[in-house]
Amino acid sequence: MERVGVGLLGYGTVGSGVGTLLRDCADDISLATGKQVYLAKVLELPGFSHPDLDAGLVVHDVGEILADPEIQIVVELIGGVDAALEFERAALQAGKHVVTANKQLIAQHGAELFDVAEQSGAHLRFEASCAGAIPVIKALRESLAAAQVDTIFGIVNGTTNYVMSAMSDTGAPYDEVLKKAQELGFAEADPTEDVSGKDAAAKMAILSSIGFHSRTTLADVPYEGITGITAADIAHATSYGYVIKLLGVAKLIDERVNVRVYPAFVPMDHPLASVGGAYNAVFLESRHFDKIMLYGPGAGSIPTASAVIGDIIGVVTTAAGGFVRNCTCYRDLAFFPHADMVSSFYVRLQVTDKPGVLGQITPILGEEGVSVRSMWQSGRDDTAELVLLLHPAREAAVTASLERIAALECVQGEPTTIRVEGEEPR
Amino acid sequence: MERVGVGLLGYGTVGSGVGTLLRDCADDISLATGKQVYLAKVLELPGFSHPDLDAGLVVHDVGEILADPEIQIVVELIGGVDAALEFERAALQAGKHVVTANKQLIAQHGAELFDVAEQSGAHLRFEASCAGAIPVIKALRESLAAAQVDTIFGIVNGTTNYVMSAMSDTGAPYDEVLKKAQELGFAEADPTEDVSGKDAAAKMAILSSIGFHSRTTLADVPYEGITGITAADIAHATSYGYVIKLLGVAKLIDERVNVRVYPAFVPMDHPLASVGGAYNAVFLESRHFDKIMLYGPGAGSIPTASAVIGDIIGVVTTAAGGFVRNCTCYRDLAFFPHADMVSSFYVRLQVTDKPGVLGQITPILGEEGVSVRSMWQSGRDDTAELVLLLHPAREAAVTASLERIAALECVQGEPTTIRVEGEEPR
Repeated sequence: MERVGVGLLGYGTVGSGVGTLLRDCADDISLATGKQVYLAKVLELPGFSHPDLDAGLVVHDVGEILADPEIQIVVELIGGVDAALEFERAALQAGKHVVTANKQLIAQHGAELFDVAEQSGAHLRFEASCAGAIPVIKALRESLAAAQVDTIFGIVNGTTNYVMSAMSDTGAPYDEVLKKAQELGFAEADPTEDVSGKDAAAKMAILSSIGFHSRTTLADVPYEGITGITAADIAHATSYGYVIKLLGVAKLIDERVNVRVYPAFVPMDHPLASVGGAYNAVFLESRHFDKIMLYGPGAGSIPTASAVIGDIIGVVTTAAGGFVRNCTCYRDLAFFPHADMVSSFYVRLQVTDKPGVLGQITPILGEEGVSVRSMWQSGRDDTAELVLLLHPAREAAVTASLERIAALECVQGEPTTIRVEGEEPR
Repeated sequence: MERVGVGLLGYGTVGSGVGTLLRDCADDISLATGKQVYLAKVLELPGFSHPDLDAGLVVHDVGEILADPEIQIVVELIGGVDAALEFERAALQAGKHVVTANKQLIAQHGAELFDVAEQSGAHLRFEASCAGAIPVIKALRESLAAAQVDTIFGIVNGTTNYVMSAMSDTGAPYDEVLKKAQELGFAEADPTEDVSGKDAAAKMAILSSIGFHSRTTLADVPYEGITGITAADIAHATSYGYVIKLLGVAKLIDERVNVRVYPAFVPMDHPLASVGGAYNAVFLESRHFDKIMLYGPGAGSIPTASAVIGDIIGVVTTAAGGFVRNCTCYRDLAFFPHADMVSSFYVRLQVTDKPGVLGQITPILGEEGVSVRSMWQSGRDDTAELVLLLHPAREAAVTASLERIAALECVQGEPTTIRVEGEEPR
């Protein structure tokens, strides 16, 4: 049986999972591919040590992996952008196929890597970069290749979904829940990339690129995170019948692309509202099939490794025939301006608690063409909290209103704004 | 650009959808495949006429399609088993790739067709045979090929789900709801294959074969339908906090396979409970990824045609490399005996309304080792209705109890039994 060596770059959470599955599923993989796929070498990064790993497998110079003729597939799981880009580029140039979970690299340097892969006839696969074990990239790239998908939205970051779910369930504040999540392993020691929305933005850039066949990079995806969400926002959401979720939303509007990441009020009876813990769920919409939802674990060692193994099997079976298709961005669509998007908003303001405040605020909304759907005010001491739910309006109008409102003497600090999504029965 | 002709057998609901998509998505398909895929010929069956179809495309002899060298792909959508088997076999022998939505054919004659395809180096693809537009077969066959899936269960028949949902929503009896479903196009004029569970059984045979890598045919899948479900059962389900859904359930137990189709009580807070109308949802479970759910339209012209188009694109792109893998049943697992399955049951009995009835029934359950979780009785005239929810027990024990109970003089007619599924938090 032909042997196919795998070179693993990085042996952290996902890397060790890939090692485990290559060993535990060796029989299934060889039955599925007709080849013996085995872990040939592991690049251990400076400062890390893995005593559980067979010392004969460990190398400290990526060159040893690139020069090994038995290694046909390089699995890059070191993350980050700089070294990973260099390693993936070198591997592709050396004619190795590359499988990766590195969403930031694909979202920021995908075009370059696809070009290099194209030139050397190598595969570049990245199912594990989005939504963990859920095969959403394969579904979009292959099954729905001509299905004219026009909306991709959902929960694509497990850490923030864990935090939002726990804040909803317990009423505890953000900092406390985040600390707990770190203790339980649901958030990293430095959670910035997750809680800022940058991780979700990279994933949405990738899904948008594939779903709409037009390149979207991280730079094209504005993102808001969850760090500003307070227990008060959660409580207001609950009282109005919503939960707050960090959503990725990609839309094709008049043949233009709009992709963003933001926390949103989601109605409690919407399927996304019940996606708890570190699970992910992605809705795909198209006039061909109405809607398809894919749900599953969005992170974790073995689930993410399972997606890597799926890609390895895909490479091994497809490479046998010599057919390679990496980039599917055969369109070059413009972007739809964010200011022209129409959205509903929840707005929370601190105002001086005295008569006439509403009389100053509501005319501004009216002048900008923004109408109020519901309003709630409660005073404490000299300060009142004013909560507004706005009807859908052009975001530019909402932004202009809020700038004018924030400048009022009776308004203290900056307004908190959170979009409302999923209102229409989907 | 190379041209790839498609020969379509049958031009009914799905066939006309395929015709529409081949025309409307021609650009996307050629951008995705690098080839011009076009509808070359349509086999019109005796007794049918399609005036909307370009007369130049219509043929009445399948031989004209098989002999056309431009036709590389035959799409079989006539359904049924006999003629379809003959046509698919002939197409594969002629070296054509075959794409089909015919679940009964694959579930009953898959092994033979895979052999023929293997010999001629042709692809045989059948994504549209299960769960309409949802790419569950591709996910199982490719992404999760080595993921050691051990449970596949869900709602895989749109007609019965429509009927069950409508019975729950309206309280109307089965016959009335079915008639309405037929008027609305959600049920066929002869709905037997759907309402009997046979359609779902064929789909579960296919999903089980792929998921567990071991052949399961229709004959291996006992099925119960929904024709015996009464408004009373629905009302009892509601009062206990359940909905009734027709489920397909495939399990790998101690390396043995058990696949069945039956109506089941599903807790109202289970994700499957909220799958309404003609939608389908399939849960896949594995120790690698816990659970993945795929949800989407289970039927309909364009959604099902969308799955056919996905297969056509897959064949065109993969065939270019010459790599063919059809059958993935590389194991030969035994079947787990149905009598040894452990299940919870809802039981509804008509009993004579006089003292001592329970005193006759409950000892029998105790003797057979079946314990009662809850019981409800209401009398009307001389007859009382007795409803039991049983704790999980070996099905052989439940069957034995109920046979003894049915033989009691105080019990009228046959007991109604419906399994309870999804109790554990999944």
